Amino acid sequence: MDIKDYMQGLGINAKQAGREISRASSGKKNLALLEIADAIDKNRELLAVENQKDLHAGQHNGLDAAALDRLALTPKAIQAMIEGLKQVAALPDPVGEIIDLSYQPSGIQVGQMRVPLGVIGIIYESRPNVTVDAAALCLKSGNACILRGGSEAIHSNQAIAACITQGLQAADLPVSAVQIVATADRAAVGELITMNQYVDIIVPRGGKSLIERISKEASIPVIKHLDGLCHVYIDDSADIDKAVAIAVNAKTQRYGVCNAMETLLVADNIAVKVLPLLAKSYLEKGVELRGCLKTCSLLPECIRATEADWHTEYLAPILSIRIVDGIDEAIEHINRYSSQHTEAIVTEDYTLARRFLREVDSSSVMVNASTRFADGFEYGLGAEIGISTDKLHARGPVGLKGLTSLKFIVLGDGHIRL
Amino acid sequence: MDIKDYMQGLGINAKQAGREISRASSGKKNLALLEIADAIDKNRELLAVENQKDLHAGQHNGLDAAALDRLALTPKAIQAMIEGLKQVAALPDPVGEIIDLSYQPSGIQVGQMRVPLGVIGIIYESRPNVTVDAAALCLKSGNACILRGGSEAIHSNQAIAACITQGLQAADLPVSAVQIVATADRAAVGELITMNQYVDIIVPRGGKSLIERISKEASIPVIKHLDGLCHVYIDDSADIDKAVAIAVNAKTQRYGVCNAMETLLVADNIAVKVLPLLAKSYLEKGVELRGCLKTCSLLPECIRATEADWHTEYLAPILSIRIVDGIDEAIEHINRYSSQHTEAIVTEDYTLARRFLREVDSSSVMVNASTRFADGFEYGLGAEIGISTDKLHARGPVGLKGLTSLKFIVLGDGHIRL
Repeated sequence: MDIKDYMQGLGINAKQAGREISRASSGKKNLALLEIADAIDKNRELLAVENQKDLHAGQHNGLDAAALDRLALTPKAIQAMIEGLKQVAALPDPVGEIIDLSYQPSGIQVGQMRVPLGVIGIIYESRPNVTVDAAALCLKSGNACILRGGSEAIHSNQAIAACITQGLQAADLPVSAVQIVATADRAAVGELITMNQYVDIIVPRGGKSLIERISKEASIPVIKHLDGLCHVYIDDSADIDKAVAIAVNAKTQRYGVCNAMETLLVADNIAVKVLPLLAKSYLEKGVELRGCLKTCSLLPECIRATEADWHTEYLAPILSIRIVDGIDEAIEHINRYSSQHTEAIVTEDYTLARRFLREVDSSSVMVNASTRFADGFEYGLGAEIGISTDKLHARGPVGLKGLTSLKFIVLGDGHIRL
Repeated sequence: MDIKDYMQGLGINAKQAGREISRASSGKKNLALLEIADAIDKNRELLAVENQKDLHAGQHNGLDAAALDRLALTPKAIQAMIEGLKQVAALPDPVGEIIDLSYQPSGIQVGQMRVPLGVIGIIYESRPNVTVDAAALCLKSGNACILRGGSEAIHSNQAIAACITQGLQAADLPVSAVQIVATADRAAVGELITMNQYVDIIVPRGGKSLIERISKEASIPVIKHLDGLCHVYIDDSADIDKAVAIAVNAKTQRYGVCNAMETLLVADNIAVKVLPLLAKSYLEKGVELRGCLKTCSLLPECIRATEADWHTEYLAPILSIRIVDGIDEAIEHINRYSSQHTEAIVTEDYTLARRFLREVDSSSVMVNASTRFADGFEYGLGAEIGISTDKLHARGPVGLKGLTSLKFIVLGDGHIRL
């Protein structure tokens, strides 16, 4: 098989299906989502068998335990895919929404209509559940998609693809609306991210090196986030109980996630009160502490942080701590080291809260809440295809609206321009 | 002067000034705009003298009449710059606007805050008035900008730059918020469009070849429009008077503009009624008609269109005309040949109007209105920095909001994630 021809074929089909799916009624799209859920429900056994092939091959090829864990389609993982499909079906349809329709002095009415982007290419690692999540979000938002999962999950993904095809057919929607790349050849990715005539946007999901490579090589725009180097700043004016609760939650609720805190900034005047309490809690949970000179003098269990620590997304039970003069130094530190994902301030001071919200240039900025809330579900988006740390188009958790754009519509009654 | 060092210096200054201007109050920004208007008002003579230098050099270098016309800072052009500044000052400040702030089940409040993009690089041809327009929009939207005008306008632009600096100083804002590249060396453009660490977005303004080249070479995202190949479709169900008024206006109100109609599509059953009326009007105005076979059989003055005509943005008194079966063939033609700028339908049929609005994938879609309305002022944006035919971020006329992005804000009261 010639990979270029194969991928171009997918592109042509997707473009055509994208036009049809963009016009599909909300009812048909929801029916397809529920029929896909039904097909998965009825094919649990087949999915398990196909997934076993991938797991065996993975073990044989020396995948580590974490990778095998992500690859496994356990009964619980299958149930989660079914629930996810039902949740997306229940969300409001973003397509065709009209906003800000108002009369202009000339007499025309001008507004904006939300429309699908067209064709979305999604590249991800060996997590078969992403196949269903991504397909559901693209379908609901009226986009066609081309999905390229990790080659280690190819049997699982093909089995899921069959369920998706059944669902689309049952709803009388074009099966090319969701296409899954059926080759493990890595050249397929190179084609996908440069087929500008067929693909409107690329969403890479996975580790930083995957995302960096795709961003660099893609000629199609990419929605991405690279790092989640998130900060919590505890101001003098913080309520101690809230500060402890938030700083412990932001670091320890889960470690390997992009919205976990990696650096804690503490105002000088409150450090002596709050840091010993925090250190006790962190040490109980086995979190290693790396601090600035002042922090180390307060906390004997703390080792000295180096410049590299301020730049590091640990994704692990390690925390860097710096004592700062106040909000100005905190914001300066954040501007310098943050990956612009999520930052939080803990304060009871109205003016400082307002300043932090406006001046910190990150995709999510919080007051008195844990950075762990930076998530499409928690934000009420219903689901997310990823979190964008770019500034253009979509910023922060990207839900259905992030997969659409707004075109202008004009309603007249024979109006001409004078 | 080393161009790379020089441009990097502008980048560093812009980044710093961008932080300051992003926090500047609406009052200060408006004051700066009015002070710039005042400085231009007081320096009309100096501007004219510097502009004369560019005009003389342009004549010497063989610029054509149209280019010299765009280069000229006539008293009328200077007055228009002053009025433009006052208009932008009077627009609402987009920065800091908070939308959709609502409580989530967890108890946190989630909303989105509109924030500046950061640093905007604008590359344009030898129209000195763009210098003021672009600076005003960037300043009001809280962005720093680096402006690179055509080398033929360098004296005019430097004189305008001095006025801008005076205005920024008078309002106590950083003068690096607006920087104008002070070299005619074309290598400056290559640097500007690849300084990803300092520049957040590039806006090219000018001819298609300039925009194509910049889009191709830029590593920074570009807001652009390439072509304005706009269509008007007259359905069977159209009111004849409205159809004639709109089709004449869309083609002939101005020829060299991106929102002028280039191809007219007419439904078979109305062609015999509407086309002779239109042809009479077009011929009176000296518009050359190029039609499909059916059109030519109806209109003796029409010559045969070739395949190339359907692809051509004439920007001239030439119109291609095609008779189609109905809305399906019209939409198919548009999907195939349109540049996705602006398309209009003329119809009295509710269902067809609704279908056209939803199914035509262009940045502006109109019912019973002339394509010439596709414009930031006519849409009530107050001003525009350009028209985007891309789908991501900003689509259609790009005003102040197009120079901002939305970050998420979260307000809690010590909330942690469970």
